[in-house]
Amino acid sequence: MLFRDYDEIVQEAKKFAPVTVAVAGADDSAVMEALKRAELEGLAKPILIGVKSEILRIAEELDYKICHDSVIDASSPDECAYEAVRAAAEERAGIVMKGRIQTSVLMKAVFNKEKGLRTGRIISHVFFIKLPGYKFVGLTDGGINIAPELPEQAAIIQNAADFCHLMGLAMPKVAVLAPVETVSEKIPSTLYGAVLSKMADRGQIKGALVDGPLAFDSALLPESVKEKGIVSDVAGDADILFVSDIDMGNGLFKGLVHFGKGIPAAVILGAKTPIIVTSRADSSECKFYSIALNVLYAGKLKKAGEI
Amino acid sequence: MLFRDYDEIVQEAKKFAPVTVAVAGADDSAVMEALKRAELEGLAKPILIGVKSEILRIAEELDYKICHDSVIDASSPDECAYEAVRAAAEERAGIVMKGRIQTSVLMKAVFNKEKGLRTGRIISHVFFIKLPGYKFVGLTDGGINIAPELPEQAAIIQNAADFCHLMGLAMPKVAVLAPVETVSEKIPSTLYGAVLSKMADRGQIKGALVDGPLAFDSALLPESVKEKGIVSDVAGDADILFVSDIDMGNGLFKGLVHFGKGIPAAVILGAKTPIIVTSRADSSECKFYSIALNVLYAGKLKKAGEI
Repeated sequence: MLFRDYDEIVQEAKKFAPVTVAVAGADDSAVMEALKRAELEGLAKPILIGVKSEILRIAEELDYKICHDSVIDASSPDECAYEAVRAAAEERAGIVMKGRIQTSVLMKAVFNKEKGLRTGRIISHVFFIKLPGYKFVGLTDGGINIAPELPEQAAIIQNAADFCHLMGLAMPKVAVLAPVETVSEKIPSTLYGAVLSKMADRGQIKGALVDGPLAFDSALLPESVKEKGIVSDVAGDADILFVSDIDMGNGLFKGLVHFGKGIPAAVILGAKTPIIVTSRADSSECKFYSIALNVLYAGKLKKAGEI
Repeated sequence: MLFRDYDEIVQEAKKFAPVTVAVAGADDSAVMEALKRAELEGLAKPILIGVKSEILRIAEELDYKICHDSVIDASSPDECAYEAVRAAAEERAGIVMKGRIQTSVLMKAVFNKEKGLRTGRIISHVFFIKLPGYKFVGLTDGGINIAPELPEQAAIIQNAADFCHLMGLAMPKVAVLAPVETVSEKIPSTLYGAVLSKMADRGQIKGALVDGPLAFDSALLPESVKEKGIVSDVAGDADILFVSDIDMGNGLFKGLVHFGKGIPAAVILGAKTPIIVTSRADSSECKFYSIALNVLYAGKLKKAGEI
């Protein structure tokens, strides 16, 4: 199992804390509330980048005692993104976090060839969610890669698998989602399911048990697996759900969060430091848990010598 | 509003009942249980097509008094599909229902050019769901069309809009789902959102208020609309969610059903008669509500002179 619950993540993260978080567009109430809690619990020290007067006003409103030296005044979204990424590139920050700016603006700075945070790996996004009655499950990629081709799909799964390894899960179970369990030439996701499964069998994806095509219910629910008579080591027990495009990843995830009462957190994998991108509509609690998860991730990366 | 709840659908359906339902692969316990309830409530009279000995055994197990003349012995899935479609084509049945056979097998018989149930319209699928705290919402197409091009996308929305009109909702609100609300050349669903909106503005899709791109949460949740500052007549109040491929439609729907505690029902639009396709993993209650919804649909079609 990846994690039991968010308390376990917070407790584990404290072993590696505090980590400095550079926030691009910190002039946002829910973001500041999450940072306040993270700082009070000893998880994070923020660098607050945004409209300084607004940041100070929100801090006062939230009764959040911030260090004025940690505020960097920046008015445009591009400037916020650039300053946050620079802090990470110069190792003044261990994590970059999106505040009140668009994801695409932040990622443009991250992807910048000279001043960004690229490594040799693909940069991919994983949503994690704790659903009632089910273990922690990750969904990738619903945040960055739009419609990846096969080599990128395999690399996205490898990123998620390597994240699981860092977290102590040696052989994560990955379900490649499709609308059905049988291979059909007409449905590309069923072909990808078959191909990615075989790539894992042949060691082209390492340290993961991959199976697909599997419908959403077959990936997570033992009763669907039984009813449909599916024979699979992954079905009904997936740790990671792989989706072939961002539309499905994003829509499915939002459906699970808003109507499944699941608590979400997200990580971005493959960059020089962890990057936190939460949705504007997420609660400050969600944002706090994303900070905790990324502090843990930053700590484990450092311990493994990868940053 | 489309419907208040399933009770309203059942009560409305009774005004047009009973309708004869030809069931392809009736030798299935959950299907027979749903049919028993539909028959007891006066909604449906079944033609049971499948392995006769199995059908009789299940009927006895369920204490379901069936008319032996209504059973058609058929062993192969293809034969079951063919017989059910033939009953509808010859007007012995007003609805076709999938039992224990694959959707693709049933649809092959439906799509058959000479003996099938085609009309001039596109055949498309709509999942309906009643989610806690939200009105009835439809999701199309998560069941039949795999990755439709623009003209088919517009026709799928038109099918759903016309269904709403039949049910008394004159101007349904249709959200074209995407991962974000801004148009991005790199994300096809955002382009489709813009284009389909304009097609509705210009009367190329009739009797629907279409807006997109909208993320899932922005389509349904007023708090997300407010937080993101979206100005739209559709956002936060959608009746129909349009998804650009079957992967997303199927995955999102299953997520909402299994973790959102929503009760689902489905219709297939554009064929000569309504067609009921439920998932093998659906409960008999779901199957019963799908029968009720399709009886209502068949009745309204007949009243409108369309069959």
